[in-house]
Amino acid sequence: MSTRHRVVILGGGFGGLAAARSLASADVDIVLIDKSNFHLFQPLLYQVATGGLSPADISFPIRSVVREQKNVRVLMEEVTSIDVAARCVKLAEQNFEYDTLIVATGARSHYFGNTQWEQFAPGLKTIEDATAIRAKILYAFEAAELETDPDRRRAWLTFVVVGGGPTGVELAGALGEIANDTLRDDFRAIRPEEARILLLDGSPRILPAYPEELSIKAEKSLIALGVRTRTGVRVSNIDAEGITAGTEHIASRTVLWAAGVQASDIGASLATQTGLTLARGGRIPVIGDCSLAGHPEIFVIGDLANFEVDGKPLPGIAPVAMQQGRYVAEAIRRRIGSKAAQKPFEYWDKGNLATIGRASAVGYFGKTLLSGWLAWLIWLFVHLMYLVGFRNRLLVLLQWAIQYVTFNRGARLITGRK
Amino acid sequence: MSTRHRVVILGGGFGGLAAARSLASADVDIVLIDKSNFHLFQPLLYQVATGGLSPADISFPIRSVVREQKNVRVLMEEVTSIDVAARCVKLAEQNFEYDTLIVATGARSHYFGNTQWEQFAPGLKTIEDATAIRAKILYAFEAAELETDPDRRRAWLTFVVVGGGPTGVELAGALGEIANDTLRDDFRAIRPEEARILLLDGSPRILPAYPEELSIKAEKSLIALGVRTRTGVRVSNIDAEGITAGTEHIASRTVLWAAGVQASDIGASLATQTGLTLARGGRIPVIGDCSLAGHPEIFVIGDLANFEVDGKPLPGIAPVAMQQGRYVAEAIRRRIGSKAAQKPFEYWDKGNLATIGRASAVGYFGKTLLSGWLAWLIWLFVHLMYLVGFRNRLLVLLQWAIQYVTFNRGARLITGRK
Repeated sequence: MSTRHRVVILGGGFGGLAAARSLASADVDIVLIDKSNFHLFQPLLYQVATGGLSPADISFPIRSVVREQKNVRVLMEEVTSIDVAARCVKLAEQNFEYDTLIVATGARSHYFGNTQWEQFAPGLKTIEDATAIRAKILYAFEAAELETDPDRRRAWLTFVVVGGGPTGVELAGALGEIANDTLRDDFRAIRPEEARILLLDGSPRILPAYPEELSIKAEKSLIALGVRTRTGVRVSNIDAEGITAGTEHIASRTVLWAAGVQASDIGASLATQTGLTLARGGRIPVIGDCSLAGHPEIFVIGDLANFEVDGKPLPGIAPVAMQQGRYVAEAIRRRIGSKAAQKPFEYWDKGNLATIGRASAVGYFGKTLLSGWLAWLIWLFVHLMYLVGFRNRLLVLLQWAIQYVTFNRGARLITGRK
Repeated sequence: MSTRHRVVILGGGFGGLAAARSLASADVDIVLIDKSNFHLFQPLLYQVATGGLSPADISFPIRSVVREQKNVRVLMEEVTSIDVAARCVKLAEQNFEYDTLIVATGARSHYFGNTQWEQFAPGLKTIEDATAIRAKILYAFEAAELETDPDRRRAWLTFVVVGGGPTGVELAGALGEIANDTLRDDFRAIRPEEARILLLDGSPRILPAYPEELSIKAEKSLIALGVRTRTGVRVSNIDAEGITAGTEHIASRTVLWAAGVQASDIGASLATQTGLTLARGGRIPVIGDCSLAGHPEIFVIGDLANFEVDGKPLPGIAPVAMQQGRYVAEAIRRRIGSKAAQKPFEYWDKGNLATIGRASAVGYFGKTLLSGWLAWLIWLFVHLMYLVGFRNRLLVLLQWAIQYVTFNRGARLITGRK
């Protein structure tokens, strides 16, 4: 039996994987548990949902990432519970005791208490979500082509994206390109370019976390793609017939949800056991070294963690999770080596980018604002760079190049419908 | 209203699409109806099922194929029934009258009266089948890694393919490569190369339709990949625990079905209405011009048709369907142009190829037998050539090249599990 320091990592996303890889040369035994067998590059998930890329192009088997790293054992399994007192993670048929636990289980779509909306307005967090949304979008055009009643046809050709953050903007922009370019000439009874695409947000402007100047630029780019934005509106109902926003009822058969996420349920269990109070979005508060107060053996990183800087939580984005993953790996190495602890975690904000469509993106890097071509090129480069695996990079680059030249999207499959 | 000759084509597979494209310059109005929005290149479906390619790489939107062909209208819809007397195809909400009907709806997996086997031993006919089989195969290794009981672990690591035709051989060969190459070093508790892979067939040899010399070569190649064949055995039961073949019960959690297909249900309806008797496998007998006896306005082509040559039906393979599709298109053109009818359809057998694995295939072209490297290269070339679309060809070629060099399979996703 091994007497090495036992690290259990929950979640093979950006945070969990960064932690595991940073512990490559550490004298620890790692068990990495994820309910999927692959790491998902979520920033490109909207391109799967809009037929530009295939699921496998943005996924990479977790086992292959750590194949050569003999101190990691990967298990594909759902975690049943964590026993904080016993320092033990429980799976269906096995328990794993830990000396250090890293919880990086992320977040899922959240409907603010209206769970009944989910069936009509799917969110975009998993591969299954993406292929279901892809089928929903593409089927709407097929159904419109078959439909003879003008009102019902109009409802099939009305697309509503709820949530004007980066994901909502990316989805709406891609919908604009699908209607105006990709499907042009594909139909006989309908004209896809007559599709109505709406982007709704409760804030006064889209991309509310971005500088206002970029919100305006993004909105202009969206308008050029045929997308209309409605800001400052509250959604009061979503059902099979459409969506009610403010005082308006919009008849739509395709409503997509990009409005909110909720940290995974494991946070609630951890909070109960440690006496902590969950923050907004179900995130669990962590202290400066990314551990839970009073439990230095439990690190929580990524979307599940509420790490406050000047009273504001860090955003739920990949760079935060990755930096935290590397930070806690170093913390563990220092503890084992009986070295002094690091300074508290500091997020290094390298910048933020949101793409709108073909040759169009917005971004800011400190106080430098960028938009248009250059922002889009940087966006392309950064996303290719962070994709895991040579194969994925090559396939994605190739498909982007083909799409750029032909205006076509090659992964336009309607699958999984009953 | 158009008074042009109305052609309705059911099915956008090899046969239906060949017919539609061959009618490009004909003075007809075509309605092409398929329940999917894409044409599927079924010969490579086993590579999706074994994680080598993505679904979109072997699929192509039917609309895009005929985008420029203005005499075709494509509808994605299920056909409810055909009314032979009224010359009318019925969909859920619309009917389409035809002057000529081309039925090319293909075949599905068939369990010889044991439909309860289907849930335990999925067949491989659709994209959904392929991703479900992919998940089943990959999950078996994951479950084995988690399993501590040696007998149950053994059952997870036992893979049984039922049916020794080309699809069964291709699946079994790919399973051998997955266990021996792709997953090597990925696991800690199990050694994937210890997986037991069995290929069963009721005939005295695998590839029974091929020359015996090639059956022997194929079997040798499979043995080199760790696949053991059991020929001359009858399957008497399949359930969640495994499979009973002959007198032997094999404990296996992964049984795949490649043993039989049944023509689509539309054949039975056509037979009832026309007084014809269905042939083996539910195929409907056609006469020399691929029409139904007494109904020159109904052509049936591809896997659904029973076209006999010297008392033997033509095989259910893509080249037969494509040649029949082009033949009936020409028949329609001649009728419209009041030209003399063609000679009866003659299948030009260009040869048959089955691949076993890396640099290994068998094939025959007339009396010329080929195996090994050369057969494999021809197989690669032919399949790339018949794939629809430049993008698909490029992506498939690239992924084959990467797989050849790295022994890796890039589309190893477990998706869609509950």
